[in-house]
Amino acid sequence: MNGNLARELANLLSPEQVVTIGPELRAALQDGTGNRGIKGEAEALLLPADAEEVAEVMAWCYGHGVPLTVRGGGTGLAGGAVPDGGVVLSLERLARVRSIDPELWRMEVEAGVRTATVHRIALENGLMFPPDPGASEQSTIGGNIATNAGGPHAFRYGVTGAWVTGIEAVVPPGEVLSSGGPLRKNVAGLDLTDLMIGSEGTLGIVTSAWLRLVPAPEERGVVVGFYPDTASGCEAIGMIMGSGIQPTALEFLDRGALESSLGSFPSEAPEQAGFAVIAEADGSAGEVNQAVGDLEEAMAGGALQPPVRITDHVAIRNFWAWRDGVSIAVTAQRGGKISEDVVVPVESLAAAVDETVEIGRRHDLPACSWGHAGDGNLHSSFLVDLADDDQMKRGGAAAAEIFEMAIRLGGSISGEHGIGSLKTGHVEAALGPVAVRLQAEIKRVFDPKLLLNPGKKIPLP
Amino acid sequence: MNGNLARELANLLSPEQVVTIGPELRAALQDGTGNRGIKGEAEALLLPADAEEVAEVMAWCYGHGVPLTVRGGGTGLAGGAVPDGGVVLSLERLARVRSIDPELWRMEVEAGVRTATVHRIALENGLMFPPDPGASEQSTIGGNIATNAGGPHAFRYGVTGAWVTGIEAVVPPGEVLSSGGPLRKNVAGLDLTDLMIGSEGTLGIVTSAWLRLVPAPEERGVVVGFYPDTASGCEAIGMIMGSGIQPTALEFLDRGALESSLGSFPSEAPEQAGFAVIAEADGSAGEVNQAVGDLEEAMAGGALQPPVRITDHVAIRNFWAWRDGVSIAVTAQRGGKISEDVVVPVESLAAAVDETVEIGRRHDLPACSWGHAGDGNLHSSFLVDLADDDQMKRGGAAAAEIFEMAIRLGGSISGEHGIGSLKTGHVEAALGPVAVRLQAEIKRVFDPKLLLNPGKKIPLP
Repeated sequence: MNGNLARELANLLSPEQVVTIGPELRAALQDGTGNRGIKGEAEALLLPADAEEVAEVMAWCYGHGVPLTVRGGGTGLAGGAVPDGGVVLSLERLARVRSIDPELWRMEVEAGVRTATVHRIALENGLMFPPDPGASEQSTIGGNIATNAGGPHAFRYGVTGAWVTGIEAVVPPGEVLSSGGPLRKNVAGLDLTDLMIGSEGTLGIVTSAWLRLVPAPEERGVVVGFYPDTASGCEAIGMIMGSGIQPTALEFLDRGALESSLGSFPSEAPEQAGFAVIAEADGSAGEVNQAVGDLEEAMAGGALQPPVRITDHVAIRNFWAWRDGVSIAVTAQRGGKISEDVVVPVESLAAAVDETVEIGRRHDLPACSWGHAGDGNLHSSFLVDLADDDQMKRGGAAAAEIFEMAIRLGGSISGEHGIGSLKTGHVEAALGPVAVRLQAEIKRVFDPKLLLNPGKKIPLP
Repeated sequence: MNGNLARELANLLSPEQVVTIGPELRAALQDGTGNRGIKGEAEALLLPADAEEVAEVMAWCYGHGVPLTVRGGGTGLAGGAVPDGGVVLSLERLARVRSIDPELWRMEVEAGVRTATVHRIALENGLMFPPDPGASEQSTIGGNIATNAGGPHAFRYGVTGAWVTGIEAVVPPGEVLSSGGPLRKNVAGLDLTDLMIGSEGTLGIVTSAWLRLVPAPEERGVVVGFYPDTASGCEAIGMIMGSGIQPTALEFLDRGALESSLGSFPSEAPEQAGFAVIAEADGSAGEVNQAVGDLEEAMAGGALQPPVRITDHVAIRNFWAWRDGVSIAVTAQRGGKISEDVVVPVESLAAAVDETVEIGRRHDLPACSWGHAGDGNLHSSFLVDLADDDQMKRGGAAAAEIFEMAIRLGGSISGEHGIGSLKTGHVEAALGPVAVRLQAEIKRVFDPKLLLNPGKKIPLP
């Protein structure tokens, strides 16, 4: 970027809102994929403070033909926030809670509010915001919306989009779009809210959102079953789904994921297990007691030991902190991993888990998976040394086979992490030509100059 | 349509799938708005039997520049299925249940399957499909998807779209689009599924859908409170929402709706009531017992009599049948009604209820409202004699004021019935210019010749 343009930007915002050098800019050139060596380029990091400033930046970018990539908490796992030239815009200063109405079960927050902050405020008011993607202390609601993030409790409660009733967004050439609002139902127009949700900054920049909340359950209870292998573990999942219970979360870890993480499991576990199933129930104390008993019964068949029951509040918090740390524990094995988020019909989960290991074997890489069993959503991972070019190359080839497998099993190439830059090349195989044509044309409706997060999510002809 | 074109169509399908004369065609020229004198025109009713035949019809329409309007069960309340020339395509022959997987909580049904059939099949398998718009014996899943239909239980469980994980649709110029599938999560592309849901046949024709199901609750319990006026009734709604209970449905009827319907109320009710609040809970027997007690307590303040508790299975079925009949009971007062489905932020429900009556008074028409209180979704209605032109004219003016009121209160012009032909003129005021521009351009992406359900839903420049 030449000095003139940087000066123009500094006039548009204020000089301290335009960062053209230094560690803050460097940090904004990567996201949670950083350890895979994915690093972008940008000539400036912009820090607008409200939707109007975002609109001014977008209008300026549109006027000058400058690419614009938006970023939230930087925890993305598909390269969606990694800029490819132009400017990168952080929403960290749009961090106000605009309103909280506990008796109306809703709040309006700006995009830069941390996910954990939303959880905390809801709970302080006796309410719950169910979506719980990992890294919630770092990730932002804006980033969750951009990727339509999931998490363990999506099984019962749905992904982020199910809890967003309206958005404010800036769309090219620099206009503020208000879609939906504090309304719980609205069919006045095409569903632009859900179209923006999950669009990874390619259609516009979501600056705030109306979130729906629900009364927080009194109690929770977690049951963990350990099984000798994938087949017996997946059988237990089938028993749970056929039992009439509706768990809030239904998770799994395969043998490799357990080997990496079981050392810090906060309760008694068998030394060797080939598969673990986690189920949670919530509700009143009586309901949870009943559901946990039912879950234990459904999960007992084929288990290595009687299922572990966790009902103490602190123990449950510790348990989910352990679960949230599985990804890091797997990474720690070899210093790095190539981990791909795919989804399959739930009856194909066992096949996907076993084939992940088999693909790793073919490429001579330790492999494992874990994730959201009830949603058929697995994180298939290959352990690598990031500095070893040969391992990285084999890991990339293995990942491509994971995508091929997911599609072959009737699934899709991303359940909750998004497409970003990493998976764009696999989208056509996943969606088919008609959907690819339509979404490319929709991209042009919103962003005719193709300046928003170029190269991400949407393959263009 | 000239004889040549009719012959071409009869070659494309079979002669008995092309109806160009008679009562079956005449019935296809109206929907649930028929009593308001809205009647369309079409030169043929087409009865394709599968998605391929729908695609052939669409390709033919695109080749010949013939408008194409799709219809489901014909129960729509906004004129969305009323054809304006060209051909009308009924999906009634696409009525197969393609698959039901009880242990996987899902089914795939063609668009012409009746909503009540879906409910029935789910229940027979111990599962529930929660969306319950009125007239479920007549309406079809395709129609529910086209309007993103709601119903009482949307308060807890969400509208139709929340339960559709994938669709098969025919889009111009005659291609089959598969979006989503049996997957519970999928962020591989822009959310074309939700874009099609609620698009009222203006973007394409949904031919089948993957539906998500959940274990059916063991028991239900309904509590009904009667109050002297809107203010005290809405205060009870606030008490419920602040109580920590999460009802499955939270409904209301105002004084006029009660006057029309209380005669057939299947339990004890006060002779005169200004407002009724209905709350339902579901779950295990113990949970329902607890929740019903909590609801009674929350609803007792300000009530005319102790809240009515309904827990017997048959009594609950009769109760909801009564509730479903409110619309007909209101119509019966004067032979007709002009009823508009609007939505407001829930804290503005009382204002909207009272203003509906006031608008009626100004136009010298009896007025009332009822609907889904917890969602702020009300059906504001003016009683008219359909044969009285002056009353119809005043009713139309009153309806326009209802839309203006909903927008002024921060609401929207349709909560669950759709826009159809009746409300298209009010969309720009509801959505604003940016959303109107974007949705018009999206319409052109899908339907560049503007042949699909012309004049409906989406105002075009």
